[in-house]
Amino acid sequence: MNSYAAGKKIYELLCKLYPICRSITGNGTRQTLAEIKAIIPIETHEVPTGTKVFDWAIPKEWNIKDGYVKNSKGEKILDFQKSNLHVLNYSAPVHAKLSLKELQKHLYFLEEYPDWIPYVTSYYKENWGFALPYRQYKTLPDDTYEVFIDSELKDGNLSYGELYVPGAKKDEILLSTYICHPSLANDNLSGIALAAFLAKHLMQEKRTYSYRFLFIPETIGAIAWLCRNENKIKNIRHGLVITCVGDQGKFTYKKSRQGNAEIDKAAEKALADLEKPYEIIDFFPSGSDERQFCSPAFNLQVGSLMKTPYGRFPEYHTSADDLAFVQPQYLEDTFNAYLQTLFIIENNGRYLNLNPKCEPQLGKRGLYHMIGTQKENAPDEFALLWVLNLSDGNYSLLDISVRSGLTFSQIKNAADVLVSAGLLQKIENKPTS
Amino acid sequence: MNSYAAGKKIYELLCKLYPICRSITGNGTRQTLAEIKAIIPIETHEVPTGTKVFDWAIPKEWNIKDGYVKNSKGEKILDFQKSNLHVLNYSAPVHAKLSLKELQKHLYFLEEYPDWIPYVTSYYKENWGFALPYRQYKTLPDDTYEVFIDSELKDGNLSYGELYVPGAKKDEILLSTYICHPSLANDNLSGIALAAFLAKHLMQEKRTYSYRFLFIPETIGAIAWLCRNENKIKNIRHGLVITCVGDQGKFTYKKSRQGNAEIDKAAEKALADLEKPYEIIDFFPSGSDERQFCSPAFNLQVGSLMKTPYGRFPEYHTSADDLAFVQPQYLEDTFNAYLQTLFIIENNGRYLNLNPKCEPQLGKRGLYHMIGTQKENAPDEFALLWVLNLSDGNYSLLDISVRSGLTFSQIKNAADVLVSAGLLQKIENKPTS
Amino acid sequence: MNSYAAGKKIYELLCKLYPICRSITGNGTRQTLAEIKAIIPIETHEVPTGTKVFDWAIPKEWNIKDGYVKNSKGEKILDFQKSNLHVLNYSAPVHAKLSLKELQKHLYFLEEYPDWIPYVTSYYKENWGFALPYRQYKTLPDDTYEVFIDSELKDGNLSYGELYVPGAKKDEILLSTYICHPSLANDNLSGIALAAFLAKHLMQEKRTYSYRFLFIPETIGAIAWLCRNENKIKNIRHGLVITCVGDQGKFTYKKSRQGNAEIDKAAEKALADLEKPYEIIDFFPSGSDERQFCSPAFNLQVGSLMKTPYGRFPEYHTSADDLAFVQPQYLEDTFNAYLQTLFIIENNGRYLNLNPKCEPQLGKRGLYHMIGTQKENAPDEFALLWVLNLSDGNYSLLDISVRSGLTFSQIKNAADVLVSAGLLQKIENKPTS
Repeated sequence: MNSYAAGKKIYELLCKLYPICRSITGNGTRQTLAEIKAIIPIETHEVPTGTKVFDWAIPKEWNIKDGYVKNSKGEKILDFQKSNLHVLNYSAPVHAKLSLKELQKHLYFLEEYPDWIPYVTSYYKENWGFALPYRQYKTLPDDTYEVFIDSELKDGNLSYGELYVPGAKKDEILLSTYICHPSLANDNLSGIALAAFLAKHLMQEKRTYSYRFLFIPETIGAIAWLCRNENKIKNIRHGLVITCVGDQGKFTYKKSRQGNAEIDKAAEKALADLEKPYEIIDFFPSGSDERQFCSPAFNLQVGSLMKTPYGRFPEYHTSADDLAFVQPQYLEDTFNAYLQTLFIIENNGRYLNLNPKCEPQLGKRGLYHMIGTQKENAPDEFALLWVLNLSDGNYSLLDISVRSGLTFSQIKNAADVLVSAGLLQKIENKPTS
Repeated sequence: MNSYAAGKKIYELLCKLYPICRSITGNGTRQTLAEIKAIIPIETHEVPTGTKVFDWAIPKEWNIKDGYVKNSKGEKILDFQKSNLHVLNYSAPVHAKLSLKELQKHLYFLEEYPDWIPYVTSYYKENWGFALPYRQYKTLPDDTYEVFIDSELKDGNLSYGELYVPGAKKDEILLSTYICHPSLANDNLSGIALAAFLAKHLMQEKRTYSYRFLFIPETIGAIAWLCRNENKIKNIRHGLVITCVGDQGKFTYKKSRQGNAEIDKAAEKALADLEKPYEIIDFFPSGSDERQFCSPAFNLQVGSLMKTPYGRFPEYHTSADDLAFVQPQYLEDTFNAYLQTLFIIENNGRYLNLNPKCEPQLGKRGLYHMIGTQKENAPDEFALLWVLNLSDGNYSLLDISVRSGLTFSQIKNAADVLVSAGLLQKIENKPTS
Repeated sequence: MNSYAAGKKIYELLCKLYPICRSITGNGTRQTLAEIKAIIPIETHEVPTGTKVFDWAIPKEWNIKDGYVKNSKGEKILDFQKSNLHVLNYSAPVHAKLSLKELQKHLYFLEEYPDWIPYVTSYYKENWGFALPYRQYKTLPDDTYEVFIDSELKDGNLSYGELYVPGAKKDEILLSTYICHPSLANDNLSGIALAAFLAKHLMQEKRTYSYRFLFIPETIGAIAWLCRNENKIKNIRHGLVITCVGDQGKFTYKKSRQGNAEIDKAAEKALADLEKPYEIIDFFPSGSDERQFCSPAFNLQVGSLMKTPYGRFPEYHTSADDLAFVQPQYLEDTFNAYLQTLFIIENNGRYLNLNPKCEPQLGKRGLYHMIGTQKENAPDEFALLWVLNLSDGNYSLLDISVRSGLTFSQIKNAADVLVSAGLLQKIENKPTS
């Protein structure tokens, strides 16, 4: 029985992070990074307000203690303490009395989903506001309302976390997730929690590649990291942005800008081998931080492996993206899809058939059935033949698995057997594809 | 309300040209060129009979005044004055009395369309004949018939018209149509009339490219022009043969021999953006003058943008290809498809993102929504991101529009906005594709 | 009426070969080669036991005179004389009395096809055994059984046949078939018999290529031939493995490892032109001797043209692959498919249009209809235009036939006509594709 052990741990962390009010800066992100640090040894970084990062500047730090709207009877009709989504993220402080009409200019809602609170932000234009279900909005009576937001916007820092896990070679795999969303479960507490346990898992494994995990505020955090670490970019060989990984939808892999990068082929093969529904979608320059990693000057081989992508589920950026919307079993599925993709990248390589003239005699090495059967070869024998036939230096194991239609694991196992039998040799120092 | 203003003008000219009896040489073509000259300042050229043009020679000039078949009662049963299709085009003069049996050797008809007169020609073998509806043919009684064709075939000239419209650069777009068919509306008075008004329109526009319009007899005219203008061929960057542009069928674009020329991609994108039914067909070496422009020594980037192509509508080359078969609204549709294709060619280009490391901050330039919404980016913002992401010098705006799935106009607008904002720069002097 | 003359002769030879008990070595193969020699002048070769051939060694020679299982009443319940499939191919000699339980360890059967005897072999591990229908197997009573196999396994030779048919050039087409299977009709007496008559036919034709026919034991024979003839391999330009060519299934062409070799395109075009059902399948490294010819060091352009492939019909490797399973008409169909494929390879070539500026005037050379018709060009005229348009040195006739959708024969005929008319010239010494 699969008890979803990994999925449950990921879900537990996700639940712990859920109540925190995060934004692109502020104590919410620091608190989140502290919880991650309890699991994996991330370094935390602080980038001061006003620091230039490429075309951008780090904004003021935002912190909030409370926020509400009261009616003339003094009843709190909207309360930050009940849901941090009620307050426009990055709201400036305010304390005032307003008519309904004046108040309405600062209210956000979704007519098509009248029971949900939308998640709204105003990072780069000072503003204040409240979000609420449309069902509530349309019943607000003419009244005098007291609005109060106990926030502050002042010089401070942008915070992010980073974990470098060295491997046998300096070539890096970048795994990036974003930590700026408040109480939203799939987008993107699922990504944060999965990334933490993925790092924990990989630290215990033998690694060919080095790994770099980023826990950053979306957009400005990615830009800040890239600007501060331009010298590290040349080592990044592959990467994935981890987001929206906990819902029940099918797998979705969004390709890198290059579109035929090794990570693109590896992720597609991993999903095919898992034999669960999936979809491969082309790169597009909106979405998450692949926008920055794949900007033209960097053009990194970075894709994104998700369940249902951002913007394609109705609950996206609303209060309905809650703890019931994500489940341990789905988190476990995605965790496994990440492991399988990284397994392929880690184990991919080109080999040379040392006996390239005709087939070697597998039988005398105990690698062949002894009684000629009447049906086609069994799969594993077939894998041996495929690896031998295509190992001429041009095909990687991933290429062979794709062309043969066998799983990557079958092909990798066959290669291992053939290396042990002295029939195959790994070609070192040649980039795979 | 679209009043089909352009379509109506095109249709008017078409109606004026319809009664004229044209052929590959003769006064019918001169009269046609004169009508065109009333609209646009074409130059007319005369090429003498016998002039060698590559493997061919200019044939004798053909002119006709009258033609009929009379029965023994002296009744005209076939009369050139009622339809110029009744006389085999390029018929030698004849005046004789014949039995029905002898006459039948010179009669042409279509069993499958018994009410229509077929259009038949004999340019390169001296002959005479009459064409008539099959329904009439099969009721002809045994009788003595008088045949009379008042034509002459003698040394003279082949006539064609040419208009050069200079643009900012010497690179040319060739727009070619043929003027040799008699009273046939779609094939090809529609092409002649549309070409005339396309030229008139373009003369009033700002042009990057220079344009060359040809009004030539099909085949021999194209060969003659190419032979006499070999030095101009190197300037021809793109081209379209204009034929069969007035019927109600769906758009059809026939690709150039190269198959992936910029004009091929531009025409396909223009049709896709118009959101009307269309079909893209591969090049084949029969058809119209693209046969000559795409012959192996020239292999020009010349396609053909049509409604229903020649040979694919039953009315083709019959008296049923008449003034009712073409309509102003269809001519207007095709006119717009030509304008859109040329708009793409005129405005295509490669640009350089001047801020290629991460996205530039669109918000501070007023190019971004200020309140984070809960749905995907609006199309125009999306166009900005696509142009920024792919403007690395490898992608033209046409490439970007195809990859993004946005219309060319959206992409072009986005590029203009980004240039104005100082974020993008045009790359000059690099061929597009 | 097609009397299937070729198919009948092929079938006759097949019937003559059917009773012989063949294996990878032994007198059965010699007897088979003798029958082939009665039709075409093959050379026979003998390779001694123990000879090293790449990673393999020639095994002992196996011969068998008799074999049976008797029950305690002395009744033969399994008899080699009734079907050579009853004895495990390559069985060591044995004479013993056994209980049912002991006997069962040496019995082979097919539960899913209870009436058929499976074909089983044990070439490289000494063993003995009997094969029988499952229906008989499950009714065997507890008894004492006498088993007797009068075979011998001793140093001797492996035998194969080879026929070299010289052509105008040294470049070779390899046609290989295998002779090691006992009484199995489709796999592979059909291949042997078809190959023999294909050779006979080609010897009477004018040939551009030289041909090499191999009649070899599968796997070890191919390996032995390749090892002994490494110096000849460089001449092999194209090849086909002939197997399973007599059943009623659709045509199947298995591509070479390269996948886009000229033979791959030629076979696909031949099958398309025949207008019978066919399937093109990708190379895979199990199957027949294409495994060796396409091993990475040789990577020859060798495919396999079959009806239903090995392993994909239930009768495969059973007593049901008998003389009723193959029929003269199917053998004739495949024979024609081979001829058409080789016709394409023999006649493929690149040509140069000697009049590449515009079309030449076909009419003055009698190659064009003289009265302009109202419909599209007739196919043969169309073939002339295609050949002229694409004969720029980049396209072979095969390429032209594929791009035009016309048959290869139409294109080849058009090229011949154009060469006669002085409009086209063959480009010598340029490899085709």
